Amino acid sequence: METLLLDREGVDVNARMGEVIDAVGDAFAAYERGDALMPAKSYIELDQYNGDFRSMPAYMDAGEWDAAGIKWVNVHPDNPEKFDLPTVIGTMIYSDPETAVPLAIMDGTELTMKRTGAAAAVATDRLAIPEARSMGLVGAGVQSYTQLEAIAEIRPIEEVVVSDLDSDAVDAFVDAFSDQFDVRAGSITEAAACDVLSTVTPSTEPIVSRADLGAHTHINAMGADAAAKQELDPEILVDAKLVIDDHAQTTHSGEISRSYEDGRIDDSDIHGAVGEIVVGDRSGRTEDDEITVFDSTGLAIQDVATAHVIYEHASEADDVDSFPLVGR
Amino acid sequence: METLLLDREGVDVNARMGEVIDAVGDAFAAYERGDALMPAKSYIELDQYNGDFRSMPAYMDAGEWDAAGIKWVNVHPDNPEKFDLPTVIGTMIYSDPETAVPLAIMDGTELTMKRTGAAAAVATDRLAIPEARSMGLVGAGVQSYTQLEAIAEIRPIEEVVVSDLDSDAVDAFVDAFSDQFDVRAGSITEAAACDVLSTVTPSTEPIVSRADLGAHTHINAMGADAAAKQELDPEILVDAKLVIDDHAQTTHSGEISRSYEDGRIDDSDIHGAVGEIVVGDRSGRTEDDEITVFDSTGLAIQDVATAHVIYEHASEADDVDSFPLVGR
Repeated sequence: METLLLDREGVDVNARMGEVIDAVGDAFAAYERGDALMPAKSYIELDQYNGDFRSMPAYMDAGEWDAAGIKWVNVHPDNPEKFDLPTVIGTMIYSDPETAVPLAIMDGTELTMKRTGAAAAVATDRLAIPEARSMGLVGAGVQSYTQLEAIAEIRPIEEVVVSDLDSDAVDAFVDAFSDQFDVRAGSITEAAACDVLSTVTPSTEPIVSRADLGAHTHINAMGADAAAKQELDPEILVDAKLVIDDHAQTTHSGEISRSYEDGRIDDSDIHGAVGEIVVGDRSGRTEDDEITVFDSTGLAIQDVATAHVIYEHASEADDVDSFPLVGR
Repeated sequence: METLLLDREGVDVNARMGEVIDAVGDAFAAYERGDALMPAKSYIELDQYNGDFRSMPAYMDAGEWDAAGIKWVNVHPDNPEKFDLPTVIGTMIYSDPETAVPLAIMDGTELTMKRTGAAAAVATDRLAIPEARSMGLVGAGVQSYTQLEAIAEIRPIEEVVVSDLDSDAVDAFVDAFSDQFDVRAGSITEAAACDVLSTVTPSTEPIVSRADLGAHTHINAMGADAAAKQELDPEILVDAKLVIDDHAQTTHSGEISRSYEDGRIDDSDIHGAVGEIVVGDRSGRTEDDEITVFDSTGLAIQDVATAHVIYEHASEADDVDSFPLVGR
C-alpha cells in the first residue's frame, strides 16, 4: 500500500482551484450542518526558538465524499534570516476516514495558500457585487497570489491594484500576473477602492481606513490570525456586513478580535458565518452599495477539503512519488 | 532538503532499544521537571466507521537534545476483518524544534510498540527486583514483543511464560523468542507468579487476580488505555506500590480509572509518577517482598523521544529513503 508524497509543486499542480473552492465551500457547509469534527487547534509555544507548532486535525462529511487528516504547521519568524527557510513549514497527513490509512503526505505550506485563497473566494462569491471587475491586494507576500488566483475563478476580474512596502514583492506579483490581468502597483487607497479587496499582511495596526473603501467594496481580511494582528480601521467593522469563518477563532484571534474585546462590536454586529450563507440560512450581499467584510482565520476543515481535491487528482496521475509507509 | 521516510522495518532497525529506553526515561524526567510541552490528546470519533483518530503533539527538552513532533494515530477495530488492515495505523512527523523542518515521516505503529516497551522498561528498572529472571506476559499480541525485548535490556530475564486465549498468537511468540529465552505457554496464574508481569490485552474485566501474584511481582499494566479497559483485580491496586505515567490520563482512562472513579483508591494510594522516580523525587522499590504496579497509558513525549533515537540513527545510515517535502 503506497502513501503518495506531494511536494510544493505536486500540491500546486493537483489543487485545481475551481474544485478547491467548491470543496472549501462544502467544508464550511458541513461545519454549519454539524457534519464536521474539528478539535480546537493546539499550540506548542517554543519561546527559546521564537516559534510555535500547531496541530490542526479535522474530519468532514460533504455527503458525496468525506475526508480526514491533520496539518502540523508552525510559525518561526526567524527562519528566513537565520536559516534561509520559510517562516511557515506545514506538513499535511491526509487519511482515509474509513480505515485510517495515510493516503498522502503533502506539503502543507502550499496547501495553506490554496485553501486560504479558496476560502476568500467562497466568501467573495456570496458578498462581492456579481460584476466585480477590479481587485485590490494589500500585501504582496506568499498569500496574495492565491487570493487573485481564486477570486478570478468566481468573478470577472480584469484590473488588479497591488500595494506593499516591499517594491520587490510588488514587482514579482505584477510580473506573475501581467499576462492575465491589467495589474499595477498602487497605494492602499487605490487598492481599497476596488470592487474586491484582500488584505494579506501581518500588520498589527489598522492600515486600511474607512474613507479608502469604495461604495460597495467587499473585503477579505485574511492577515489577522493572531490576537495582536489587525488590518482594518475598526469603523469598517461597525459599518460593514460582517461575515466570519468561526465565532470562537475570529473573536479570539481574527480581525474582529480587538474590536470585539473592547466592546466596539458585539455579536449583534456579526451578520453570520460564511457556512450559514453557503447553506442558505443567512443572506449574502443584498444591497448594491453595502460594504462587506469576511474575517478569515483559517479552519482545519479547509485543509482536509483541499487535501481531498489534491489527492483525487494525484492518485490518478502517473508521475507522483509514493512510499509504502504502512507496508507493502 | 530531504525528509527521511521510515516504514515499519526502518523504524525497527533504527529504534535501538537500549537507547530508546534511555530516551523515554529522559522524556518522563523532562515532563516531571516542566521541560516538556504536551497538549492534551485530541480525538475525532467516527461512529459511522467504528473508529477514531487521535493527535498527539509534543515537545521535550532533555538538556543535551530536544525533540518535537506529532503522532497521528487511530483505532479502527473492524480493520482486520473488513479490510485486512491493522486496527492501529500511526504516522509520526518528527520535526526540528528550532526550524520546524520535518526531519522524518515514520511508521507510527512500530514506533508505538517500541516506546511502549521502553516505558515498561523504565518503570521495571525502578520497580522490579534487581535480579528478576522470570517474566510473564498476559496477551501475546503485537505489544507483547517489545515488552520482552525492552525488559530483557534492563533485567537478566531467562524464563518467560506467555498466556493468551489465541494459541496461534502464543505459538508465534514462543517461536520468535525460543532462541533467546526459556519461553513457554502457560496460564495467567503462572505468568503472574513471575518476577515481572506485563499485561497487554484489550480486556474490559479483571483477568489477573490478587492471589495469582508472586510475593514481589512487578506488574506493567499496559493494556488499559480507555475508560472501559481493565486487566487487574482492584485488590492488586490497593495492595501494590502504585506508579503511573500521568495523573490525568491514568485516572481518566488507565488501569486505575475504574477504581479511582468508584473511590476504592484515591490519590493517597498513588505512590507517584514514573518521572518522579526517574528524577529522584520518589523512591522506586524499597522492599524485597512488595508488589508494584506501573499503570501506563502512553504519552506523546514517549513518541518524540523514540523518534529522536530513530532519526539519529537513520540520518547516518546510507540506505534510508527520503523525499524533498519542503523543497530541493
